[in-house]
Amino acid sequence: MTAIYMDHNATTSVRPEVMKAMWPYYESEWGNASSIHWAGRAPAAAIDEARDAVAALIGAPARDLFFTSGGTEADNTALHGVLWGNKAKGRHIVTSALEHKAILDMAKYLAKEHGCEVTHLGVDEHGRHDLDELRAAIRDDTVLVSVMLANNEIGNINPIAEMAAIAHERGVLMHTDAVNALGKHQFDVASLGVDLLSVSSHKIYGPKGVGALYVKRRTPFQPMILGGGQERGRRCGTYNTAGIVGFGEAAARAAEDLDAGLIERMSALRDRLDKRIRARVDDVDANGDLVHRLPNTLSLSFGGVDGEALVLNLDLRGIAISTGSACTSGSLDPSHVLVALGKDARWLDAAIRFSLGRGTTEAEVDVVADAVAEEVGRLREVARSA
Amino acid sequence: MTAIYMDHNATTSVRPEVMKAMWPYYESEWGNASSIHWAGRAPAAAIDEARDAVAALIGAPARDLFFTSGGTEADNTALHGVLWGNKAKGRHIVTSALEHKAILDMAKYLAKEHGCEVTHLGVDEHGRHDLDELRAAIRDDTVLVSVMLANNEIGNINPIAEMAAIAHERGVLMHTDAVNALGKHQFDVASLGVDLLSVSSHKIYGPKGVGALYVKRRTPFQPMILGGGQERGRRCGTYNTAGIVGFGEAAARAAEDLDAGLIERMSALRDRLDKRIRARVDDVDANGDLVHRLPNTLSLSFGGVDGEALVLNLDLRGIAISTGSACTSGSLDPSHVLVALGKDARWLDAAIRFSLGRGTTEAEVDVVADAVAEEVGRLREVARSA
Repeated sequence: MTAIYMDHNATTSVRPEVMKAMWPYYESEWGNASSIHWAGRAPAAAIDEARDAVAALIGAPARDLFFTSGGTEADNTALHGVLWGNKAKGRHIVTSALEHKAILDMAKYLAKEHGCEVTHLGVDEHGRHDLDELRAAIRDDTVLVSVMLANNEIGNINPIAEMAAIAHERGVLMHTDAVNALGKHQFDVASLGVDLLSVSSHKIYGPKGVGALYVKRRTPFQPMILGGGQERGRRCGTYNTAGIVGFGEAAARAAEDLDAGLIERMSALRDRLDKRIRARVDDVDANGDLVHRLPNTLSLSFGGVDGEALVLNLDLRGIAISTGSACTSGSLDPSHVLVALGKDARWLDAAIRFSLGRGTTEAEVDVVADAVAEEVGRLREVARSA
Repeated sequence: MTAIYMDHNATTSVRPEVMKAMWPYYESEWGNASSIHWAGRAPAAAIDEARDAVAALIGAPARDLFFTSGGTEADNTALHGVLWGNKAKGRHIVTSALEHKAILDMAKYLAKEHGCEVTHLGVDEHGRHDLDELRAAIRDDTVLVSVMLANNEIGNINPIAEMAAIAHERGVLMHTDAVNALGKHQFDVASLGVDLLSVSSHKIYGPKGVGALYVKRRTPFQPMILGGGQERGRRCGTYNTAGIVGFGEAAARAAEDLDAGLIERMSALRDRLDKRIRARVDDVDANGDLVHRLPNTLSLSFGGVDGEALVLNLDLRGIAISTGSACTSGSLDPSHVLVALGKDARWLDAAIRFSLGRGTTEAEVDVVADAVAEEVGRLREVARSA
């Protein structure tokens, strides 16, 4: 049985080049980058270089980017940072019903415990936002609009540049969670016009435990992790040199992949997977926007099939896919994303997310499509005879 | 020129066994530990095992411990978690003037922005706390006492068990930052009687970017990093599997080192260093408590010598030591620890911290002592002829 991994939105493997780049920072250059003696010099220089690489991938000035422990901390920090950095203006935040839990749960906490008010933008049945709804949601006390660049479950790419323009007309800051867009979508902070942007290393073949937050110069901002002054006070704590170096290397390689046509290659494979499954299975519903979407993500619901059962059956065949976000795996609640799409109850538990990677092959796509067809057939058979 | 590293309180090297243990979690078991398919299984099991090892080192039940991105986040989370988890009781925190900036800066922020009140316990000229001062500081609205187990600059070991008993008499929770005590001092959470305790991996020959916070069962607690439900909701974000595994391996090895007499061995080397320096240099002042202290830390001030200049001169000879905490390296302010000790102005900029490691040898100690004597002599000569 060959293992096939088609859950790249949950996490990716670590590229050999990334491991090779990290290794010296465990083996010999393990010094504290803040030390003023010899042990601190190579780590400090390597962190600068990694910062340049990550900044280049998002088109940001390196000094506007600081490293975090991952995408979740970056998202949390963006909300915390803008809310407490703009106390005089107000405590209203506009976000979307489709955001990652790192945004939704932090917003909920700020609302429940700290007098923050949160408006969640709705979406249509394809998960698309209405810009007029955003215009209407912004109030005089709104301090932030936070909408993700690309959704991790259904792959929708949101009109962030248009949203940022609307926010800015009202003097409101704009944050986007670009964790799932990074490396799979061409963008830069200037074209998007955002004030804050979150990214993560482990979604682009880098190590886990490292991410970054872009905060545009002169944005009023209150740091969240405090004490020690690292990252010019914006994110304290001893530098995770090896992790940061790995993120830098992964970012440099991701830029190469994009230049080499990764998006077109993944789109073609994604379409092949979609077509091959649909040729073999009926009663299939596609989730999300089929026009503005990531090249690697395909969310399908199979009528009468429990998504969790399908995931487990495919796992027995060595195929790794998921029902939705890995972060909420094991939860019995239906995906908050599908709920927001207003899907009929019969589809809610029937969704499966296929997320392709840079190494995904046509052969893998074909094996997965055929296995899905077989297992869907089998599960429907069981349901009929029950 | 042989490089000698004697700044182990700033950070330590990564043990070869730790790197070996981590490697598979980059190379092959890079799955998301929250995934329910095959890719998640080995990472999830490895995290459990690492949790057991770290918990064993501090004598805690594994389920009361969750992983963080480091000691700073653990310290921040302890203050945040208790303060916002006990809003009904009050907003007063008691801490010490000698704490790490991760405690002091978070306390200052909570005071400035969130109506928290903070009492800083003073210390005598040796950095010792007065238990009566603690008794007097606790108020009806006090929610937390946070005092570090061992100081990172002067090495003092504080009477945490006695402090916890005093706090508990008044129904107040007790946190201790054990980042610099871990692996250099025998302790366990039960004997200390603490409710929360912070530790970090990179001070015990593990990787940077990972730490842990112990929170005793049923302690009212508000998580800080939110979204995704990892660590049973207490600390969210994709698991940094390799980092966690490295911390686990480092903890297991640290326990072996303690059993094998590391404390006695380091104390003897520390005393040898102290004696050899004093035999060659006059006008030396020792900082801290010479009775209750870490075995590896020696803080000395050399009259008429600028500590920073001494560090730089020794660095030119390949010797890595520091003036105080690496976190505040480069800062022109004198150490807040020495200021709290009420040292005369002539000593404030004259302090040097030597911190020994498990691999420190007698030969290294002798080289460092002789180099210090020479460089102190030279700097005094320069000062006299200026």
